[in-house]
Amino acid sequence: MPDSRDTGLVLDPHYDAAGLITAVATDRVSGEVLMLAHMNAEALAATIASGEAHFWSRSRGRLWKKGESSGHVLRVADIRIDCDQDAVWLIVDAAGPACHTGERSCFFRRIEGKKLAPAE
Amino acid sequence: MPDSRDTGLVLDPHYDAAGLITAVATDRVSGEVLMLAHMNAEALAATIASGEAHFWSRSRGRLWKKGESSGHVLRVADIRIDCDQDAVWLIVDAAGPACHTGERSCFFRRIEGKKLAPAE
Repeated sequence: MPDSRDTGLVLDPHYDAAGLITAVATDRVSGEVLMLAHMNAEALAATIASGEAHFWSRSRGRLWKKGESSGHVLRVADIRIDCDQDAVWLIVDAAGPACHTGERSCFFRRIEGKKLAPAE
Repeated sequence: MPDSRDTGLVLDPHYDAAGLITAVATDRVSGEVLMLAHMNAEALAATIASGEAHFWSRSRGRLWKKGESSGHVLRVADIRIDCDQDAVWLIVDAAGPACHTGERSCFFRRIEGKKLAPAE
């Protein structure tokens, strides 16, 4: 059943056992899903305060501003949060490719049966 | 550095310690992010085979076809996978509200500073 976290107007993120929520970024103009990553409370606060996407790097164990080395920052136009407050949706303007492979989006391959194919 | 999982055309999902990957569903027409959930290998296989979104319910500990009780299934037009193969993007046509609250999208609230506001 829906509860106050589900429908109220209090920001109350539901962090998992590792202190993380999931964040998905889409392109403000095209709507394309660019990337998916994780945030701890510090990353969410830094994103809200700066207007640029920050994440928690699970592999490196540290706060990470997207584009801090590449310059390919994600300017955040809007942040949505889902019903159970364990995921956020960032609507962004990307300064460059979002993916470390150089692709515009990390989701550049389509699943076709048991194989992959280029998405475009 | 990119490796073969990142750039190749072999479907090789990178399941986490709980056997899950993240799945984000967007509306095929509007591009709106509808919901975010998790899949195990069985849910991914069922989604690919049936063309309807299946997830793994962490709270109920079982395979779950979205809309199995409500009828609000998500017909999958396209499935993308991200560079490190730990997340999939489902491009869907929704038969009804995606959210258990009755909202079209689970992301119906905007974060404004330390508070939430209706997104529309």
